[in-house]
Amino acid sequence: MTTPLLPATATAAHATAPGKPLHDTSRRVDLVSDGLGLDPHEYATQLQQVVDAGAIDADNYSCGGAIGRLEALFAKLLGKPAAMYVPTGTLANHLAVRRLAGDDRRVLVQAESHLYNDSGDGAQALSGLNLVPLAPGQATLRLADVQPWVERSRGGRVRNEVGVIAIETPVRRRDHAMADFGELERISAYAREQGIRLHLDGARLFTLPLHSGRPVTAYAALFDSVYVSLWKNFNGAGGAILAGSEAFIDGLFHQRRMFGGALPSAWPQVALVEAYANRFEDDYARAWRAADELVGHLEASGRFRARRLPDGSSRFFLSVAGVAPELVAERARGRGIVLAWPHPDTGEFPVQVNPTLLRLPPAELARRLLDSLDG
Amino acid sequence: MTTPLLPATATAAHATAPGKPLHDTSRRVDLVSDGLGLDPHEYATQLQQVVDAGAIDADNYSCGGAIGRLEALFAKLLGKPAAMYVPTGTLANHLAVRRLAGDDRRVLVQAESHLYNDSGDGAQALSGLNLVPLAPGQATLRLADVQPWVERSRGGRVRNEVGVIAIETPVRRRDHAMADFGELERISAYAREQGIRLHLDGARLFTLPLHSGRPVTAYAALFDSVYVSLWKNFNGAGGAILAGSEAFIDGLFHQRRMFGGALPSAWPQVALVEAYANRFEDDYARAWRAADELVGHLEASGRFRARRLPDGSSRFFLSVAGVAPELVAERARGRGIVLAWPHPDTGEFPVQVNPTLLRLPPAELARRLLDSLDG
Amino acid sequence: MTTPLLPATATAAHATAPGKPLHDTSRRVDLVSDGLGLDPHEYATQLQQVVDAGAIDADNYSCGGAIGRLEALFAKLLGKPAAMYVPTGTLANHLAVRRLAGDDRRVLVQAESHLYNDSGDGAQALSGLNLVPLAPGQATLRLADVQPWVERSRGGRVRNEVGVIAIETPVRRRDHAMADFGELERISAYAREQGIRLHLDGARLFTLPLHSGRPVTAYAALFDSVYVSLWKNFNGAGGAILAGSEAFIDGLFHQRRMFGGALPSAWPQVALVEAYANRFEDDYARAWRAADELVGHLEASGRFRARRLPDGSSRFFLSVAGVAPELVAERARGRGIVLAWPHPDTGEFPVQVNPTLLRLPPAELARRLLDSLDG
Amino acid sequence: MTTPLLPATATAAHATAPGKPLHDTSRRVDLVSDGLGLDPHEYATQLQQVVDAGAIDADNYSCGGAIGRLEALFAKLLGKPAAMYVPTGTLANHLAVRRLAGDDRRVLVQAESHLYNDSGDGAQALSGLNLVPLAPGQATLRLADVQPWVERSRGGRVRNEVGVIAIETPVRRRDHAMADFGELERISAYAREQGIRLHLDGARLFTLPLHSGRPVTAYAALFDSVYVSLWKNFNGAGGAILAGSEAFIDGLFHQRRMFGGALPSAWPQVALVEAYANRFEDDYARAWRAADELVGHLEASGRFRARRLPDGSSRFFLSVAGVAPELVAERARGRGIVLAWPHPDTGEFPVQVNPTLLRLPPAELARRLLDSLDG
Repeated sequence: MTTPLLPATATAAHATAPGKPLHDTSRRVDLVSDGLGLDPHEYATQLQQVVDAGAIDADNYSCGGAIGRLEALFAKLLGKPAAMYVPTGTLANHLAVRRLAGDDRRVLVQAESHLYNDSGDGAQALSGLNLVPLAPGQATLRLADVQPWVERSRGGRVRNEVGVIAIETPVRRRDHAMADFGELERISAYAREQGIRLHLDGARLFTLPLHSGRPVTAYAALFDSVYVSLWKNFNGAGGAILAGSEAFIDGLFHQRRMFGGALPSAWPQVALVEAYANRFEDDYARAWRAADELVGHLEASGRFRARRLPDGSSRFFLSVAGVAPELVAERARGRGIVLAWPHPDTGEFPVQVNPTLLRLPPAELARRLLDSLDG
Repeated sequence: MTTPLLPATATAAHATAPGKPLHDTSRRVDLVSDGLGLDPHEYATQLQQVVDAGAIDADNYSCGGAIGRLEALFAKLLGKPAAMYVPTGTLANHLAVRRLAGDDRRVLVQAESHLYNDSGDGAQALSGLNLVPLAPGQATLRLADVQPWVERSRGGRVRNEVGVIAIETPVRRRDHAMADFGELERISAYAREQGIRLHLDGARLFTLPLHSGRPVTAYAALFDSVYVSLWKNFNGAGGAILAGSEAFIDGLFHQRRMFGGALPSAWPQVALVEAYANRFEDDYARAWRAADELVGHLEASGRFRARRLPDGSSRFFLSVAGVAPELVAERARGRGIVLAWPHPDTGEFPVQVNPTLLRLPPAELARRLLDSLDG
Repeated sequence: MTTPLLPATATAAHATAPGKPLHDTSRRVDLVSDGLGLDPHEYATQLQQVVDAGAIDADNYSCGGAIGRLEALFAKLLGKPAAMYVPTGTLANHLAVRRLAGDDRRVLVQAESHLYNDSGDGAQALSGLNLVPLAPGQATLRLADVQPWVERSRGGRVRNEVGVIAIETPVRRRDHAMADFGELERISAYAREQGIRLHLDGARLFTLPLHSGRPVTAYAALFDSVYVSLWKNFNGAGGAILAGSEAFIDGLFHQRRMFGGALPSAWPQVALVEAYANRFEDDYARAWRAADELVGHLEASGRFRARRLPDGSSRFFLSVAGVAPELVAERARGRGIVLAWPHPDTGEFPVQVNPTLLRLPPAELARRLLDSLDG
Repeated sequence: MTTPLLPATATAAHATAPGKPLHDTSRRVDLVSDGLGLDPHEYATQLQQVVDAGAIDADNYSCGGAIGRLEALFAKLLGKPAAMYVPTGTLANHLAVRRLAGDDRRVLVQAESHLYNDSGDGAQALSGLNLVPLAPGQATLRLADVQPWVERSRGGRVRNEVGVIAIETPVRRRDHAMADFGELERISAYAREQGIRLHLDGARLFTLPLHSGRPVTAYAALFDSVYVSLWKNFNGAGGAILAGSEAFIDGLFHQRRMFGGALPSAWPQVALVEAYANRFEDDYARAWRAADELVGHLEASGRFRARRLPDGSSRFFLSVAGVAPELVAERARGRGIVLAWPHPDTGEFPVQVNPTLLRLPPAELARRLLDSLDG
C-alpha cells in the first residue's frame, strides 16, 4: 500500500494541542476496539482519578450532575441546541425515530444498519414503526434509493407516509465504510423539502472528519437528531448521546424512563467520557499517522500487505503470506498486541485504528508483528 | 395477437356444468371489475332472490348461519380443515400474519403486495410486525430473494427470526401477473424445513387454475393459511375467507372481534357468494374463450391490437391506432361497455376478463367496440 | 306499578309526525331487540324497497354515496360538524379514544362499559392505551371518581397524563341505566378545564331524550366525539357513526382502513337506517305509551308485576307469580311474542321497549301474555 | 412508643456472622436512603477496592463475567433456578409481565404499585398489556379483590383472560407497608389453580424477613418471577435482578436488548452488590436494633414521638413538639444526620432504617438529634 492510509486532507485539521490525558500505564496495543478497551482495573483507576479531581456530581435518575454536564458538552460539540444521555445506542436510535416519526410511521433505513439488524426489531415491535430496509449490501444510501419509496408510500390506498430517514455512518456492518457526503446532502435537502425528518446514527461519528474533511457539525447539521456512542471512541462503560433541537429533547426523558432506561445513577458509566471526548479527534489523527508509519514498515518487509476500503474510516486490513494468520494473532497477543481473528475466507486481519497505537513507537510495533510471523 | 390469450391447458379442466345462475338481466359488459360489478338495484334483486330461496339463515356477530355455511364451503374448495369469514381482505391478511408469526416477528412479503402497500401499515403499527419488502418491481418472489433474509435475520445481535413468508398471487399491482408456481413450491419446501410459516394472499386465487393448470387446492396446500376475497370474483358486497388448520382458526374470532371486525349481521354482505363460488371457474373459463374470440374479431379489423403479460392472469391490454382512446372509452360506455381509463403513457386499455363477457356474443361486442372508434 | 313507566317530561317533546314507514307486514312483537329484529326475509324486502325508491348510491370502500349521505344526516342529528361511518361500534369506540388520546395515553372509562369489557382489550393491545376502569358496579361515573385519577396520573415519576374520559350511556351491562346528566356536565366542564378530551359511547343514545328530557344534541355537546349504533335502534344490519369536529374526522378513514374496517360496499349494511333514524324518537315514545298501557292491563290482572330502574331507559322487568316463567316465555313465542329468557335467580323477564310494541294493540298483547300463563 | 419497633420474631433469625465489610469511612447517618447512599467518592473508592480484590471480570453486553456471577448468587438467594440482570427495576417488571402474560393480556396489579404509577405506562404503551389497578389506597391486594376481576375478564364478549397477577411488597407508595403474607398465599394458590402466572415486585424484598418472619425464599416460592433491586438495599449504582424458572429466563436477554437495556459493560453499576448482598439481612437487623435503642432515648426525652405502621417494614415516623421540623432537619444535617423533609401536613419525618444507623452509637445519634431541637 504505497499511498498512506491517512488522507492528505486530514493533516492540517487537527493542530490544536490535546488536553492532559488520564493516567494510563497500559502498553497494550488493542487493534480490535474503537477506543482503549479498558479492563476493569484500568477503568476503576481512571474513575477514581476523575472523581478525585472533583469533576463528578452524581446524577439523579440520569438527570443533572455529571450527566447534565456531558449533555451540554456534546450539544456543543455537535452544534445542536440540546442533548440527552441514553444508556444504550439501541435505545437512542429507537427514541429518535419514534419521536421524529410522529404519525408518519414509515422510516427508511439502510438494510445494513445497526438499527435494522441489531436492535431486535424493537422500533417495529414496541413502537409499531415500519422500518423499510434499502440499499442492501451498500454503505451509502442514495437519493435514488430513497425517492421512489417516498413516492410509493404516498401511493397506497391508505396513507403510509415516510416520516423519517435514518442513516448510519460510518457503517459497522460494512467495515466502517462512510456514506458519501454528497448523497447525505442531497437526501437531507430532499427530505426537508418533503417535510420528512432525518436521524443520524453516528455511533462513531468523531472518526469521520479525519477521512472526509467534514467536521462533525457539518454532518449533524444535515439531520434533526444525532446519536453518538459514549463508549466506542470515548471509553465510557456504555451510554449514548442523543442531540437535537430543544423541542426534540424536551420531555424526552419521560420516554427514556418508560423504556426502563433511566439508570438511577448513570455517572459511573460515563465519568471518563468528558476527558476523552475533548481529545479524541487529535488522538485519532495521531493514531492514523502511527498506523501509516507502521504499515510502511510492514510492507517494506515484504511479509505483510495492507488494504483499505475506498470509502473506509477506522478500519484497514492486513494480510500475511506464508504463515497461518491464526498463529500470528496468537503470538502477537503474547507480545502485547491484540489482533482480531482473521477473516475465515480471506485470512485478512481487520485492524481497528485507535489511540492505543500511540502506546508504542511504530517501528517497535512493526518489529513485534514481524517477530510474530516466525514464532 | 395470433396466439389465443387463453392457454391450451385450460380447455379440458372445466367440463362440469355450472349451476343455475342467479337472475341477471343486465346486458352491461364491464371490463373493469373482477366480477359482475353489480349495482345496488341488481344486488338487492339477487339478494331477495337468494333469501326467498330459503338459503340464508342470519349469523350472530359473524358466527353461524349463512356465514358458517360459507366457511364450510370455502374450507372444502380450498382443501383446508377450517375457515373463518373476515369482513375485509385487509383484516384477513393481518390476522393471518399476526397469528402465524407468534414470537418470530419478521414477515417477508413482496414489495409489490397489497399487504405492504395498501393496508396502512396496520400489521406494523397495530401488531408490531416487521414486514420486509422483497423483490421490488417483481410479481414472483424467488427463493433466492427469501433465503438471504432468513439467514441475515438470524445473524443480528438480537434474535429477529423470520416467522412468516406471505405471498400474493396473482399480484394486483403487477396487472394480476402470477407468481411462478415452481418458486412457490421451492419457497414452501424451504420454509417448512426452516420452521417458517406461510400465508397466501389469494384474493383472486380462483382465476389461476385456468392459467397455470394448477387447482386452487394445489396452491393452498403450499401454505398454512389462505385468504380469498368474497367480492372480487364472487359478487359479495365485501368480505373475505381465511382458511387454515383447525388450530389456526380455533378462537380466531376473538381476534376478529378485537379489531372491530365482527359485523353483527354479516349475511347481507355475502349472501350471493355461494351461488357464484360454485360456478366461477367455469364462467371464467367461458369468459376467456369469449375474450379470445373478441380479440380475434378486433385484431382482424386491423384497428385494435391486444397484448398479454407472459405470466398474466385475468387482464390483457388493448390498444387502438388513430383515435384518442379516451374518446373510445366514452363512446363504448354509451354502447353498454365499461372500459377502464386508458393508461396515461401508453394509451392502452387494461381489460379485465370476467363473466360479463358472456352477456353479449363476441361478434356483437366487437362490433360495438369497432363502432366506438368512429363516433 | 301504579306510576306509568314513561316519564311525564316525554309527552310534549315528540309531537312531529313521523315519516312514512317502510313496508312492514310482520306482527311479531319482539321484546328482546333494541329495534325491529328484522329477519333476512324482512331485511331483504325492505332493502329492495329502499333501493327501488332510488335512495341508494353505492359507496366506494365506505366513502361517499349512501354512506356519505348517512354521515351528513347523523352529523346534523347530533349537532356535530362531521361524521364517519364505521362498520362496528367496537371499532368506533377504539378509533375515537385512539385519536383523542394522542400522546396522553390514559383513558378513564366505566368498569361496566362495553369498551372495557366487550372489546377484547383492543384499545390496550393494538393501540397501547391504558384504559383505567372506574366505578365498578355503577352506571354513573362521577366527577369524584374521575378527579383523583387525573391527579394521581400526574404524580407518577414518569408522565402518564389522562388524555381521554370515555363514558357510555345508557349502560348495557347495567340494564341500560342512564348516567346522571348533572355528572356528565360536571365531568365535561372539569375535563375541558384540564385539557382532557371526552368521548361518548352513545350506542343507544336516541332512547335517552324520552327519559331524561335532554335532546341528543345536549348530550353530544358535552363530548368531543360521539358514537351511535346504526343497527340497535335503526335496523341496520350493522354499523356505527362516529361524529365530532372537522379536525377529528379529517383523514380518519385512513385509520378505519388500517384496522381492516373499510368495507368495499357498506351500503347493504345500512341502507334502511335513514328511514328509521328520522322516525325513531317518535316511534320509541309511542312504544313506551303502548308499554305503559300494556303494563296497566297486566298489573290489573293481578298476575304480573312490573319493575323499573330509577335511572332506567329502554328496559323494564316483568315478573309472574305461580307459573314457571320459562313456560310463559315458550308459550308467548307461540303467540308471536318474543320474550327474553327469565333471569335465573329472580325469574324476572327483562323487557326491551321498541317499536314492535306498536304492531299489536296493548290490550291484545296483554291478552296473549295472560293466555300464556295458563297454557 | 413503648413496644420496640423491631418485632420479636426477628432476633433469632440472623445469627450468622456477616462477611467482612467494604472499606467505609463515612460517619454520615442517612435516614432517607434504603442503603448507604454512597456519594461518587465513596462509590469510586469501594469500586477500586473490589476490583483490586480481583472479584470483577468484565461482562459482555451484560452477559457473563461479574454479571453472570451476580445472577447465580441471586438465583440462589431467592431459591429460583435462574436469574438475569436488568439495568432498571422499571424494565425488570415490564419484561416479567410481558413474558408471563403471553396471549392473556390482562395483568392485575395494585393501584398503588410502582408498576402502575411510576413506569410511564410502558407495559401498556409498548407491550399492549392491560394493567388493571386494584385495591386503591391499600398495600395488600386481597383474594377478594382479585377473584371478581378474573371472573369478569372471562365474561366479556371477547376473551380478555387475566394472564398475570403482579404484586409489590413492601409497597413504596404506602410507606413500605407489607402485603399480608396470608393473602399472598391465598392469591398464589388461586392463581395456580386458574393457570394464572404470578410476578413479585420485591424491589426491597430483603427487608421483609425481619418483619414477617418469612425468608425471602418463602416469598419467592409463591411467584413465577421475582424482581429485586440491586441498588436500593445493596448499594449498586443501579440495576435489578429478575429471577424465575429456566424457561422463564431462557432467551430473555434478547428482549432486554430489544428494549435497549443491554449495557455494553454493566459491571461498574453492580460491582459492589455481591459484598453487600451477603450481609444485608444481618446489617439490617442490627440497624433496627439500633433504631429501637435510638427511639428509646428520643422518647425518654419527651421531645420526640415515634410511630410505626402496623404492617410497616423499613420506615417509621418521628414527630417533634414545639419546634418547626424543617429547622430540625436543617440543623441535624449540620450534625451529619440526613433527615427527610417532614410531611407538609403532619410535620412527621419519615425515617428509613438502614445500616448507616450502625455508624454512630444510638446514644450519640440521639444526642445529636436532641441538640438539633434547640439550635
